[in-house]
Amino acid sequence: MGEAKTPDASRRSERSRQAILKAVVEQVGEVGYTRLTIEAVAARAGVGKQTIYRWWPTKGALVLDAFLALLGEPAALPDTGDVARDLKVVMRATLVELVNPRFELPSRALTAETQMDPALAKQFVDALMRPNLEATKARLRVAQRAGQVAEGVDLDVAVELLFGPVYHRWLLRTAPLTERYADTVVDYVLAALRPPGPPGSAG
Amino acid sequence: MGEAKTPDASRRSERSRQAILKAVVEQVGEVGYTRLTIEAVAARAGVGKQTIYRWWPTKGALVLDAFLALLGEPAALPDTGDVARDLKVVMRATLVELVNPRFELPSRALTAETQMDPALAKQFVDALMRPNLEATKARLRVAQRAGQVAEGVDLDVAVELLFGPVYHRWLLRTAPLTERYADTVVDYVLAALRPPGPPGSAG
Repeated sequence: MGEAKTPDASRRSERSRQAILKAVVEQVGEVGYTRLTIEAVAARAGVGKQTIYRWWPTKGALVLDAFLALLGEPAALPDTGDVARDLKVVMRATLVELVNPRFELPSRALTAETQMDPALAKQFVDALMRPNLEATKARLRVAQRAGQVAEGVDLDVAVELLFGPVYHRWLLRTAPLTERYADTVVDYVLAALRPPGPPGSAG
Repeated sequence: MGEAKTPDASRRSERSRQAILKAVVEQVGEVGYTRLTIEAVAARAGVGKQTIYRWWPTKGALVLDAFLALLGEPAALPDTGDVARDLKVVMRATLVELVNPRFELPSRALTAETQMDPALAKQFVDALMRPNLEATKARLRVAQRAGQVAEGVDLDVAVELLFGPVYHRWLLRTAPLTERYADTVVDYVLAALRPPGPPGSAG
């Protein structure tokens, strides 16, 4: 897709690309990842199979791109000064996405596939998970500077304490993912990260 | 397998059962879940395909049983009175299992499959995850009675705070799973659950 093109050809390419990615999401939703075929995606998108093979080396890469297109840009992390409130916004948004049927099936398909395909897993983490984890880490770093999070806290562990329980519940379907659950996780994690001091003294 | 049998027939059945489960683990390790076939398992175990179909309704159920046989009985949770020490024993054991190549591949295969098969997911959780989560919850309840964990704590959330981060890191392969990581997670979670009081007074 890096070649020089006339504006019309570029527009056509982009239209085909969008049609393919949309067809992938629909197909995954209907037949699941394993039974998704390039043939069916091509037919649904109205493009030739070769177009798909030219742009995406594997089925995994294609589904990953479709998923990224579906999600769009990650929401910016708010910074109101109130770290609990800001983290609750993020965790609630994560949760709403995980239980949205439009996202849930492709998410599960991709999670399944990444278990058996470490290269795809790395792409998935780098493109999708890492930016969210890093944004959350950055917000916690601000809280650390503001004295709301203890100095010695390992922020990599802190973000996993936030996201881990939510994904664990989603993955295993052990209990409903409610906003109250997201809030409780945030409250507990912030209690763990709080700087030492008399009870109730920290933000 | 509930029918009355002569002792010899029972022994033969049990031998076949063990051979089948062993063959499943070896096959999953070699070709992965998707390409595992009942034919290949039967050939490797030296039994007829019908024997396998008679005992296991689906490939998922077969792999789940093979995995349960591989894991054996869950280790009892220690209760030394020191809740931090006891939880570290559990979390380290969980982590050692997750990174053991013998368990890792079947674990990932099963994790992948449960994403697309909610009925298998439920069996997996009930047979494998729930007992561990409940045992940990019981240990936290003892700690709660001993005043090491605050009264109002939601213990279902507490166990997810312990296991969620470890599984998250394993699932996404974001960073190495070390014993130090397990210990850090336990320390942070216990800090979150601690009853209110002057700093350093609890645990």
